[in-house]
Amino acid sequence: MKLLRVGPAGAERPALLDEEGVLRDLSSVVRDVDGALFGDASVLDRVRAALGARILPRLEPAGLRVGPPVARIGKIVCVGLNYHGHVAEMGVRKPAEPALFLKAPDTVVGPEDTVLIPPGSLRTDWEAELAVVLGRTARRLETDEDALAAVAGYTISNDVSERAYQLERGGQWDKGKNCETFNPLGPWLVTADEIPDPQALAIRTRVNGRLMQDSTTADQIFPVAHLVCYISQFMTLYPGDVINTGTPAGVALGRPEPRPYLRSGDLVELEIEGLGGQRVQFKGG
Amino acid sequence: MKLLRVGPAGAERPALLDEEGVLRDLSSVVRDVDGALFGDASVLDRVRAALGARILPRLEPAGLRVGPPVARIGKIVCVGLNYHGHVAEMGVRKPAEPALFLKAPDTVVGPEDTVLIPPGSLRTDWEAELAVVLGRTARRLETDEDALAAVAGYTISNDVSERAYQLERGGQWDKGKNCETFNPLGPWLVTADEIPDPQALAIRTRVNGRLMQDSTTADQIFPVAHLVCYISQFMTLYPGDVINTGTPAGVALGRPEPRPYLRSGDLVELEIEGLGGQRVQFKGG
Repeated sequence: MKLLRVGPAGAERPALLDEEGVLRDLSSVVRDVDGALFGDASVLDRVRAALGARILPRLEPAGLRVGPPVARIGKIVCVGLNYHGHVAEMGVRKPAEPALFLKAPDTVVGPEDTVLIPPGSLRTDWEAELAVVLGRTARRLETDEDALAAVAGYTISNDVSERAYQLERGGQWDKGKNCETFNPLGPWLVTADEIPDPQALAIRTRVNGRLMQDSTTADQIFPVAHLVCYISQFMTLYPGDVINTGTPAGVALGRPEPRPYLRSGDLVELEIEGLGGQRVQFKGG
Repeated sequence: MKLLRVGPAGAERPALLDEEGVLRDLSSVVRDVDGALFGDASVLDRVRAALGARILPRLEPAGLRVGPPVARIGKIVCVGLNYHGHVAEMGVRKPAEPALFLKAPDTVVGPEDTVLIPPGSLRTDWEAELAVVLGRTARRLETDEDALAAVAGYTISNDVSERAYQLERGGQWDKGKNCETFNPLGPWLVTADEIPDPQALAIRTRVNGRLMQDSTTADQIFPVAHLVCYISQFMTLYPGDVINTGTPAGVALGRPEPRPYLRSGDLVELEIEGLGGQRVQFKGG
């Protein structure tokens, strides 16, 4: 299923995109698309039953904003340097184990919202990423197979980064990752049953129509199952938590000077096979 | 005022410790101690009026658990290497600007709860810190004075850290800072009007009764007002967000070998002048 949230920012309601591509209101069945929904299989069963019974009201998509597909995200764990191609373009060594950092949930916006470039920023960059949404609590999982059973579904994340803040301001990467609006998420949460192999998805970024990232999740150094299992050794993952699983080659930082960092007015389009697309305008803050 | 939250984990209710040291139930006046309370001065005024009118029911403290004093924390921004003494013991250079990282709110427990040492961990360490709780949205503040006006109050934080995960596992510090239960917070949120100078507070840690940290917030390299103003340039702070402002000298990592890292059964007591104390047992996970 493709679950999503539509409506004004902060007042989204749950919705579903059915197999004919018709947008349907889910608010008679669930309160929201969030950890509480993923954490209880019977609730997802009710959604499936309502969809099968064709009782969900149609929603008119025209003029309707799409919000981030997950409400009340507890934490966002990000993985750095997780594509062979990105490691190569950065000229660094392949990491021996996943590099982790955090992004605050308050950075999340919808897949067609505006991202604000911080005032004075000269090095705001894109990072298309496969985002994993947790469906069950994951605490010190023993195998990578246990890990995939904890995944509710997948969506698209742009792990927007200000490279000067991230790398040149005397600290940890978090400083360049947590500016307001720096995590467009969505459009849909596609449930895990529809993505049998998360390591075989094309992933692309276009900036003002120009193809900048063009890879596949097959290039990930640490696959999704391993990431979930690995992270669960260090921190407990809860339903509704999100993992940004790293970006492929093609970011501005990995390109020759003058690097094409984002400027006010730039349009950034992300797509991942089966997960739809984002279309975000960047605007000077 | 000293605001707190009492009751079973996940079902705490708001309370207040009055000037006679009597614990009083606040649930008839506010829903909880959280960003919504801090964000609206009129709500705090109602609390003050109810306290003055002596209409708040007494609570019997015996057997009552104290929870973390802030509910629904949006994010926890941590500051590294912010005391002259700690920088000296670590043998590193004084940072030119604050080093920031994040801690997930799901790591927070109450001031008398148990902290779980991760299985196999040999380097779990304490970090007594002055925690700042935001009362207003802070976005690119212009002066340090603006910053103090955004502070709702202060409490005590233990920024528990697993040093091997933090420093030797190929990534950012976040990996060693986000284990389950790694952020005891409380006991009280002391409103900012009662802490006229946050840079003049004694701060101490005892482990099994032995004094390990014994400093004052006067030793902070970047004072609270500057931290709030600085952080607000990189990320937007919201009511109910928390800043862990760094730890003074005396952590296990800063001591000669064999370093006294925490073991199952160790009792860690933190105190900050005017903010009360924590008393937390560490337990093998």
